[in-house]
Amino acid sequence: MDFEVPEKIKVITSMIDEFVDKELIPLEPEFLTHDFRSMVPVLEEKRKMVKQMELWAPNHPKEYGGMGLNLVEHAFVSESLGRTPIGHYVFGCQAPDAGNAEILYLHGTEEQKEKYLRPLIEGKIRSCFSMTEVDMPGSNPVMMNTTAVKDGDDYVINGHKWYTSSSDGAAFAIVMAVTNPDAPKYLQASMIIVPCDTPGFNQVRTIPVMGEPGTDYAGHGEILYQSCRVPQKNLLGPEGQGFVIAQQRLGPGRIHHCMRWLGICRRSFDLMCKRAQERIMTPDGKTLATKQIIQAWIAESAADILAARLMTISTAWKIEKLGVKEARQDISLIKFYVANVMQKVVDRALQVYGGMGMTDDIIIPFFYRHERAARIYDGADEVHKMSVSRRILREYEGREVK
Amino acid sequence: MDFEVPEKIKVITSMIDEFVDKELIPLEPEFLTHDFRSMVPVLEEKRKMVKQMELWAPNHPKEYGGMGLNLVEHAFVSESLGRTPIGHYVFGCQAPDAGNAEILYLHGTEEQKEKYLRPLIEGKIRSCFSMTEVDMPGSNPVMMNTTAVKDGDDYVINGHKWYTSSSDGAAFAIVMAVTNPDAPKYLQASMIIVPCDTPGFNQVRTIPVMGEPGTDYAGHGEILYQSCRVPQKNLLGPEGQGFVIAQQRLGPGRIHHCMRWLGICRRSFDLMCKRAQERIMTPDGKTLATKQIIQAWIAESAADILAARLMTISTAWKIEKLGVKEARQDISLIKFYVANVMQKVVDRALQVYGGMGMTDDIIIPFFYRHERAARIYDGADEVHKMSVSRRILREYEGREVK
Amino acid sequence: MDFEVPEKIKVITSMIDEFVDKELIPLEPEFLTHDFRSMVPVLEEKRKMVKQMELWAPNHPKEYGGMGLNLVEHAFVSESLGRTPIGHYVFGCQAPDAGNAEILYLHGTEEQKEKYLRPLIEGKIRSCFSMTEVDMPGSNPVMMNTTAVKDGDDYVINGHKWYTSSSDGAAFAIVMAVTNPDAPKYLQASMIIVPCDTPGFNQVRTIPVMGEPGTDYAGHGEILYQSCRVPQKNLLGPEGQGFVIAQQRLGPGRIHHCMRWLGICRRSFDLMCKRAQERIMTPDGKTLATKQIIQAWIAESAADILAARLMTISTAWKIEKLGVKEARQDISLIKFYVANVMQKVVDRALQVYGGMGMTDDIIIPFFYRHERAARIYDGADEVHKMSVSRRILREYEGREVK
Amino acid sequence: MDFEVPEKIKVITSMIDEFVDKELIPLEPEFLTHDFRSMVPVLEEKRKMVKQMELWAPNHPKEYGGMGLNLVEHAFVSESLGRTPIGHYVFGCQAPDAGNAEILYLHGTEEQKEKYLRPLIEGKIRSCFSMTEVDMPGSNPVMMNTTAVKDGDDYVINGHKWYTSSSDGAAFAIVMAVTNPDAPKYLQASMIIVPCDTPGFNQVRTIPVMGEPGTDYAGHGEILYQSCRVPQKNLLGPEGQGFVIAQQRLGPGRIHHCMRWLGICRRSFDLMCKRAQERIMTPDGKTLATKQIIQAWIAESAADILAARLMTISTAWKIEKLGVKEARQDISLIKFYVANVMQKVVDRALQVYGGMGMTDDIIIPFFYRHERAARIYDGADEVHKMSVSRRILREYEGREVK
Repeated sequence: MDFEVPEKIKVITSMIDEFVDKELIPLEPEFLTHDFRSMVPVLEEKRKMVKQMELWAPNHPKEYGGMGLNLVEHAFVSESLGRTPIGHYVFGCQAPDAGNAEILYLHGTEEQKEKYLRPLIEGKIRSCFSMTEVDMPGSNPVMMNTTAVKDGDDYVINGHKWYTSSSDGAAFAIVMAVTNPDAPKYLQASMIIVPCDTPGFNQVRTIPVMGEPGTDYAGHGEILYQSCRVPQKNLLGPEGQGFVIAQQRLGPGRIHHCMRWLGICRRSFDLMCKRAQERIMTPDGKTLATKQIIQAWIAESAADILAARLMTISTAWKIEKLGVKEARQDISLIKFYVANVMQKVVDRALQVYGGMGMTDDIIIPFFYRHERAARIYDGADEVHKMSVSRRILREYEGREVK
Repeated sequence: MDFEVPEKIKVITSMIDEFVDKELIPLEPEFLTHDFRSMVPVLEEKRKMVKQMELWAPNHPKEYGGMGLNLVEHAFVSESLGRTPIGHYVFGCQAPDAGNAEILYLHGTEEQKEKYLRPLIEGKIRSCFSMTEVDMPGSNPVMMNTTAVKDGDDYVINGHKWYTSSSDGAAFAIVMAVTNPDAPKYLQASMIIVPCDTPGFNQVRTIPVMGEPGTDYAGHGEILYQSCRVPQKNLLGPEGQGFVIAQQRLGPGRIHHCMRWLGICRRSFDLMCKRAQERIMTPDGKTLATKQIIQAWIAESAADILAARLMTISTAWKIEKLGVKEARQDISLIKFYVANVMQKVVDRALQVYGGMGMTDDIIIPFFYRHERAARIYDGADEVHKMSVSRRILREYEGREVK
Repeated sequence: MDFEVPEKIKVITSMIDEFVDKELIPLEPEFLTHDFRSMVPVLEEKRKMVKQMELWAPNHPKEYGGMGLNLVEHAFVSESLGRTPIGHYVFGCQAPDAGNAEILYLHGTEEQKEKYLRPLIEGKIRSCFSMTEVDMPGSNPVMMNTTAVKDGDDYVINGHKWYTSSSDGAAFAIVMAVTNPDAPKYLQASMIIVPCDTPGFNQVRTIPVMGEPGTDYAGHGEILYQSCRVPQKNLLGPEGQGFVIAQQRLGPGRIHHCMRWLGICRRSFDLMCKRAQERIMTPDGKTLATKQIIQAWIAESAADILAARLMTISTAWKIEKLGVKEARQDISLIKFYVANVMQKVVDRALQVYGGMGMTDDIIIPFFYRHERAARIYDGADEVHKMSVSRRILREYEGREVK
Repeated sequence: MDFEVPEKIKVITSMIDEFVDKELIPLEPEFLTHDFRSMVPVLEEKRKMVKQMELWAPNHPKEYGGMGLNLVEHAFVSESLGRTPIGHYVFGCQAPDAGNAEILYLHGTEEQKEKYLRPLIEGKIRSCFSMTEVDMPGSNPVMMNTTAVKDGDDYVINGHKWYTSSSDGAAFAIVMAVTNPDAPKYLQASMIIVPCDTPGFNQVRTIPVMGEPGTDYAGHGEILYQSCRVPQKNLLGPEGQGFVIAQQRLGPGRIHHCMRWLGICRRSFDLMCKRAQERIMTPDGKTLATKQIIQAWIAESAADILAARLMTISTAWKIEKLGVKEARQDISLIKFYVANVMQKVVDRALQVYGGMGMTDDIIIPFFYRHERAARIYDGADEVHKMSVSRRILREYEGREVK
């Protein structure tokens, strides 16, 4: 066993940490008080710098202009980027584009790859993933009302989706729709590429989330598909394989979230410690850092973060070595475990800041409100707990336990 | 001992519950997506209805147009109002005006009462309370940089305050400033009434809180006092008694918060139960309510809320019977206990709503983000825990324990 | 509403507190290191003192020699007694005799009352309650294998029970057995009085619990009923009404536990505070009481205990006023809530004692290990949570919630 | 990075797991209801089998008859052994002998090694470590009253110790005593080897712990040193270096505990899962495993244990690679983290067993009561939290944090 971080990764993450500190964190005050759309130009400049440093698209294949890091390597990179909400975007590895690129890479036709994948990885266009439906539980993807019916050479799509994140300004959506209603449950849906300027692709609104309307990349679209017609060659992967592909996508997607959350943990922890050390509480100059309750939070957070990081990296290692399927239990475990560590750490950091912890003068309340979703998206805590325990319990069937 | 809710209060709260359901909750979608200022006219109409129903200013003295309820009675009223963020405002018992009115009632001169108290209780003007300083810990009020120096018949005030809540559009502020720098620590500051149109009263900004800029009543002002001059007759209470009066104000202020939080608990609990019962999770129609984890949350929340309510009411009873001073320990206990119950209940309710729980289509995320402050304002949890335990430990000095 | 403790109760509890301190706590070192049987003589002496003080059997009817306190009054008495594990026994109000006496009082024939109830309340004999079966979940009482078959004028009982607490040395058992196997589920079982010297009543062993074999009153019997024959007049209450009566018994039984647990909380809290104040941690004489984490535990425990006490008393009040049935939800809530408060408080107290907290030189580890059962007996936490939430959720059916 | 368990270790642990299942777990019923002394003969037989399998003393140097495993390797071995309370004893790697052997190996003279170390590792004798004092906080080792005064060629030791674990029947004690009262605080004490048959070495009692008197290896001795005279050559390590050596010993000692606790976690988890799967709760045959709350406990426990295991192994790796000093923060983190994971897992497992969970028919309540000490010995949770946070906070001094 070896817990040493590879030298190459140490170099890369130290470059990224410095870049985040110097170039991105100074943008946060603007980010926190303006809508995303107005930030796009300045973020575009930063992206250019990243490309010049040859740190662009760290997780993506070299043939498409990425760095081709493996999952363990990307874990460290992603933690460094996750320290600021704009990190992944500026480095070209943000959700949902990263996941969409992965599907296109694995299942796309050459034509689809040239048309959608290449510009996507190059950061020239953005995309969205349109699966969740308003009236259906996200945890049960086979409950789906959206349909894609063949008509001539086309699919005609009808349905009502929401949480189609980043739909605002996206070039195309990957849409999940029932194409084979008579097939077995898990073989009814397909993925279809829908350019967002297709007639019948109607973004009803961006959903206001935690007090923010949300624009551009930061908007969560509610989309009404009304007789939305696309050619059948836009089918992504085999017909009826939508859920199978989605499952393949969600595994890495979940660990990608965990990696990013580690960055949020690190940033919040750093700020908490710094604040504790600087905040004078009594006329004789005693700081918050001398208070035992604060000390306990710091120690508990350090332990929690260490646990979260080791679990995430070991899961990445397992995926690399044995594949997503073998690592499913670990992925479910880290999905809820790391999300909860993050929530605890952010909450403690906020509390250490006191009144300032509520203000947009600092980044913590942004994490507090937006990352509350971490315990919900890509499978709520409870869903993962059930699924992981059922898997575990099966192992005890017929096994003798003393 | 008697736990029966008085008949009179049952009648009043059932009227209020109905009014909140019919007249106020329907305003929430607008409230959640617009700034407060734009809401003022419609809220003014609702206030008129409340006055016609003779439910205006329930906690205020009858001689000034209020209902004159005692603290136990008001606990029930306040729970009913707290179910919506606009409840207390529409019924004329909102912070910080309620607390300011109480100070004016107890310590104001007749002139001050006519000029400030009467229109305040009548809802014709608003006020703010300007104590917290940017660089000083709110938990230690004797650390204060703002000064009020006598000059002729005036005080000249200089200092930098923030979290002067509701300063935006307020008619006057009650300002805490050091008037007697050579006196013992707790006797250095005084309360001074400062009309907000006084030159030198500069609202630098409203602090953006949890993603919202905040306007009018909902704005938390950062105020720069720059040679701000007011006549010495604006002194509120005796000179040097600022902290003493503030302490008197904070006790009831804290229990007022607890009462309101009970309303947030009740609303969140109702929504959680309703959602659990209606949300279908599987194709065979099973709802969230059939899930044991959800059931556990409901039961635990019911217990937590019952505890919080009983503790709040018994503390109100103790204040009524023995005075604020005798109830200080209970006030500290409920301050952190009820705040944490609220946070747990709101968090569970949000989780039960899943993705919708993040959206401003419902009220819960508003509670989630804004009431995070409950564990901070008027004494952070940790401060109350320390103060209450010191008080308890003193009781054990010299006492034989077997 | 009135939270004042009645003067009469203040007098009684102050007498009891003093008696417990002077006469019972000094017996604990012996109690902790010897088996119960060897303690019986000295406890018998203390019982005589209690009778002389006219504090015997506080919860039992005056006509049978008790004090006839109502449930609210008994709550305070029971908290005082619960401070030591031998309190209730010495005052003649210990489980399971208290519950058995209640059943006999409500459902016994005159003959049964004279033969069993009178000497039971007088403390001349002890009893046990034989319901739980080894292979059946205690949470589901309708799963029962023990049968009582009529044969001539007798019942012939066969079955295997355990957790027949205090069977060792008891004069009689109240046995639950299926008498009407063809009746609807909840009407199959009956209660039958079985003198423990009846042939076929075989105490296989006392179950070793948490490292202790258990003798006499402190023994938890495993009982094999082997063709155990008793006259049919030993039927207690109507045939087939066993579960109905058991339900009636369990409600008050649960609140009786809660009351006793409050005493354990109080004792542990007192010891924790005293220890914190006396334990010197550093050469300069600083005590544990100066440590903020300890302070936080004290404050949190104070809040938890206050909550637990108020909930217990308000539930007692509700039972007195509206009956057990109307208070079922409250009873379930306090059952799990107070048990968990106790576990937290005892755990914190133990931790404050450090190494000594593990030793039988003090009472806390006794509470720690034996009261772990509180979250299990008379319905595990989880069972109560489910039952209470189902009850709550029913209230939301068809109810409009905004 | 590499998370693969080495093949050699897989082989060893699978042998050990099988041995524990077949040979040791069947002894537990006797172990749970008899004192340790009566178990010694049968355990001696098992030790012989272990030696024949060449698995004896896995952590000890080959030159003294051990297997010479490194710390990472031993982590896996120790987890397998920790599944039963008699595992480490039977394999010759039990505390406190393991730690004492390490001190002797590193600091003993050749004569001391031959006389004490060799027979100790061979399992021919046992030892104890006599540091903790009755009236002094264990967390502050410089507060020590025991003295060793030179007199001729001897030391004369006077003092009062307790928690001298395994003193009952031990051949020798390593005693900490103040030899240099005028030196700086941390240089005042020395370690001295005291044969237990030395006059003046008086075992007053074994302390009753959690209801058990404790004998032989399982006894925690209270020792009165009364003019206890040993030759000065019994000094272990340099004079005045007692604390320095103790610190060196405690680091590995703590991680040894963590490794053992992982075994307790695994065993409790296995039993919990098996029980959940077998325990029928309803007449239609539904088991506990179908209950969502139980499922949540299983999933949470799996995550907690995975975290605890990764943290422990990575800390072992760090100690191997960088030394104890560099790993001090990690050691403190795992000390409290793993102890708390264990407590949670054991508590959940106990709850899943219901009434049986309280009985000595199974091993879980033994873990429950005796391992409560894990949060206390070798530094209470709170002490480690403080020390780790101070270390962390120092890193932030002068560091710029954005």
